[in-house]
Amino acid sequence: MLKLVLLRHGESQWNLENRFTGWTDVDLSDTGRAEAENAAGLLIKSGFTFDIAFTSLLIRAINTLNIVLEGMGLLNIPVEKSWRLNERHYGALQGLNKAQTIKKHGFEQVHLWRRGYETSPPKLTKDDNRYPGNDPVYNDIDPQYLPVAESLKDVVDRFMPYWNSDIIPCLKEKKKVLICAHGNSLRALMKHLEDISDDDIPNLEIPTGRPLICELNEQLSPIRHYYLGES
Amino acid sequence: MLKLVLLRHGESQWNLENRFTGWTDVDLSDTGRAEAENAAGLLIKSGFTFDIAFTSLLIRAINTLNIVLEGMGLLNIPVEKSWRLNERHYGALQGLNKAQTIKKHGFEQVHLWRRGYETSPPKLTKDDNRYPGNDPVYNDIDPQYLPVAESLKDVVDRFMPYWNSDIIPCLKEKKKVLICAHGNSLRALMKHLEDISDDDIPNLEIPTGRPLICELNEQLSPIRHYYLGES
Repeated sequence: MLKLVLLRHGESQWNLENRFTGWTDVDLSDTGRAEAENAAGLLIKSGFTFDIAFTSLLIRAINTLNIVLEGMGLLNIPVEKSWRLNERHYGALQGLNKAQTIKKHGFEQVHLWRRGYETSPPKLTKDDNRYPGNDPVYNDIDPQYLPVAESLKDVVDRFMPYWNSDIIPCLKEKKKVLICAHGNSLRALMKHLEDISDDDIPNLEIPTGRPLICELNEQLSPIRHYYLGES
Repeated sequence: MLKLVLLRHGESQWNLENRFTGWTDVDLSDTGRAEAENAAGLLIKSGFTFDIAFTSLLIRAINTLNIVLEGMGLLNIPVEKSWRLNERHYGALQGLNKAQTIKKHGFEQVHLWRRGYETSPPKLTKDDNRYPGNDPVYNDIDPQYLPVAESLKDVVDRFMPYWNSDIIPCLKEKKKVLICAHGNSLRALMKHLEDISDDDIPNLEIPTGRPLICELNEQLSPIRHYYLGES
């Protein structure tokens, strides 16, 4: 039996301000840092250790991971970073306040943008400075892959090649793997792992900073999942 | 012309306590953290950026690097860690106070251990908990490579294969490279880069937390080197 550990980054500045974040590179809040420290403590207490960690190119995930690894005395392990673990790109909604967006477009429309599995938020134009092609961080990535807005299905589609090429081989070698990522990239992975339906997956809420333990058999089929720190 | 940037980690707890550190995994002091932040500022002010960074498996180097990358807004770049960039292993001297060691063994002997190019300090036995084979961090490394004590020449010999296999290819691809490591692993590299004699290299003192810029031509031959922050 394998235990794959998933961790959503701690609270960010924009979680706090109730804004659509997506690929906007905002840092952790003080609460977020404390959540990451707490996650390290929970993992140690339950006897976890890791051989390799995967994270996104966004600092709220990288800093969460660094705090966890430092807390666990594991700063030395390899860390692989990929845009394929990034949060869902929220297109032209990025930066907007969620409450104001509801006021402007109505609850139904915003709910559909947020929770429709195949619904993309309004697209960016490529001259928008929120388009990843205008950010040097994504210089090395073939522009055909860079999103102007993503549905949750788009996130599944861009995460899965990396899961197959980079993460599965580690699991097959019996490496202990930690993935520190985002609400929607972890949702995408859980959909795949547990074969959750298109209708149900948008409602899976993964809390920030709480280690999610996925027990898998040798064929990487799910046995069960649970959160650390639950009473 | 290429610019390779070398950075020795900031002051550690044991630099402060005047103890032989080697592979002992001590963290930065508060001064060390401040030195790392300062290094980030110097690099930004001089217009440096990086595509990839290399560091050791020791937390004083990893944390220095993380502070520099965070300060430069570059936490997203790939970071490769290797034991081959570790500090020189000080064998049975590790943990001892330098002044007391001089009192016990005499200045001449200690000077030879510290500054003789081919002189190893007293060797560890393999049942010593300071032997890297007893540390899970080095589990994946073929025990034939794990030192019981190292001369500076030994450090050159174990650093160079990694320089050739992992770092040179990045430089040849014109990647901007930062190496965050230790007094003796950086000495080893400078010996190779600038063809410094066995007699002279032990006296090259690289200060903590000061970016050392190595300008190299296309054939990776040295043009000149200088420190940032010098007046």
